Amino acid sequence: MFKLMPRETQFNDMFAEMSANIIQGATLLKEVFADFTDVPVRIQQLKTIEHRGDELTHAILIKLNQTFITPFDREGIHALAASLDDVLDFIYAAGLRLVTYKIQSPPRAASLLAEIIIKQAEQIAKAVKNLEDHEHVLACCVEINFLENEADRVTQEAMAELFETETNPINLIKIKELLETLEISTDKAEDVANSLESVILKSR
Amino acid sequence: MFKLMPRETQFNDMFAEMSANIIQGATLLKEVFADFTDVPVRIQQLKTIEHRGDELTHAILIKLNQTFITPFDREGIHALAASLDDVLDFIYAAGLRLVTYKIQSPPRAASLLAEIIIKQAEQIAKAVKNLEDHEHVLACCVEINFLENEADRVTQEAMAELFETETNPINLIKIKELLETLEISTDKAEDVANSLESVILKSR
Amino acid sequence: MFKLMPRETQFNDMFAEMSANIIQGATLLKEVFADFTDVPVRIQQLKTIEHRGDELTHAILIKLNQTFITPFDREGIHALAASLDDVLDFIYAAGLRLVTYKIQSPPRAASLLAEIIIKQAEQIAKAVKNLEDHEHVLACCVEINFLENEADRVTQEAMAELFETETNPINLIKIKELLETLEISTDKAEDVANSLESVILKSR
Repeated sequence: MFKLMPRETQFNDMFAEMSANIIQGATLLKEVFADFTDVPVRIQQLKTIEHRGDELTHAILIKLNQTFITPFDREGIHALAASLDDVLDFIYAAGLRLVTYKIQSPPRAASLLAEIIIKQAEQIAKAVKNLEDHEHVLACCVEINFLENEADRVTQEAMAELFETETNPINLIKIKELLETLEISTDKAEDVANSLESVILKSR
Repeated sequence: MFKLMPRETQFNDMFAEMSANIIQGATLLKEVFADFTDVPVRIQQLKTIEHRGDELTHAILIKLNQTFITPFDREGIHALAASLDDVLDFIYAAGLRLVTYKIQSPPRAASLLAEIIIKQAEQIAKAVKNLEDHEHVLACCVEINFLENEADRVTQEAMAELFETETNPINLIKIKELLETLEISTDKAEDVANSLESVILKSR
Repeated sequence: MFKLMPRETQFNDMFAEMSANIIQGATLLKEVFADFTDVPVRIQQLKTIEHRGDELTHAILIKLNQTFITPFDREGIHALAASLDDVLDFIYAAGLRLVTYKIQSPPRAASLLAEIIIKQAEQIAKAVKNLEDHEHVLACCVEINFLENEADRVTQEAMAELFETETNPINLIKIKELLETLEISTDKAEDVANSLESVILKSR
């Protein structure tokens, strides 16, 4: 049984905060897709959320370097923090492309992918809320991986349709990269699941 | 001298199985390039092979987390399993692009790259078959790295020719990405060599 | 206080040599942008510098595997060597694209990014010259991260302008990838800063 020491509780709180921040970022991006107005202003808000994620990650790594815990936990916690940071980085990177490329009408798949990212982030939040319950965490990880497969399927179908229908090469480049960036975010959520699984298995 | 304990033998068997699976995947892809018919059906077979690779990787990571061995070996075995998984992931990703992009005639360089990947996978299989013989493993690693340089040269020449001759931007995007994906697979094989070298040097 | 043992001094010398090599590579690339003649010959010189970087990295990893030091230092030194290698790999990859894509007139942002990379490499050299002085190293890391943000801003503005003005899709692909490759080099310098910070904090 994984016992929570006071200092581990601090890590748990920080991971809970990071998960909540990812949910907020992914939800904002989904809302942008649903109501595609004032995009630059709202992506600026997403940048603020992403920046908050950077600060939380940095705080975890500083605390980790100053805390004495076993190497395995240390390694796992480092990987967990880094992959959580990556999920949000790619949510923001996707949002930024809407502005930089002046995308006029994002495809429906972009919205579906944002929804999948929200669901993954909810599973991450659920897992880190109760890290002592291994079966609970592993069930969340299975769900995150299932959602990543779903994202692969959505992306692949959308990409095939894009290459089938889009005749303007520059538009194709824009939409292709938007979809790829969103899909990478779901891959990073899978990395989060792998880190969680690893932390759990090592503490058995 | 690196002594093989029973539990290490199990890891060796699993790595042998992963290597054989990569050879099978790369060979299938090369055959697709040689006889470019029924592509979607055969890439579906490649997906099955890639999925088997995922299962083997997962089994190794689970076993690793449940086995007590020194941290250095652990780290090295984790890196080795992850990089072997990556080699096959990119072989499949290359195959998938043939279907998603409906590529009509892949360039000769794609076939050359698939051949290089097979040769790298054969060296990996040869190395993991006899991990106790350090000189043997290091010689395999040198060969894998030599093949990666060869792949770089092939890719670079093909890319220069593509930008010289292809005037249709969407075709250019398709072929460029096919070649890049194959080249990344050879980079991942180089990561395998680095992991092998690291495991060997640490056990001296 | 981080005490330098003889074997640690050897690592410091090797890191100093790697930093000097990166400065040399980035400076050559900046000079190519400033005087855009004889590009293939000068990128061949850049390849020689990059190859020297590979050899230095390999020497550090071999020495690391054969030296007994604590796991934390080992992990940090490995990450530091790998990220330094990556900075130069992407400098060369950017230079190579000038040749492979026969780019006729690189945008001003490419030159600005090369300048930022030189400044980052100078901060890296300054940091590794005096690793015992933690405040000094952390100040260099702050500056490296500031420069990475600057590179993000430059890249994003140049990318928006490129999509605004470039109507030839193949030219757009070429310049987009040149800028992205340079920007990745500045990201890798940020990874160097993270590794340095981690090594410092663990040795406190």
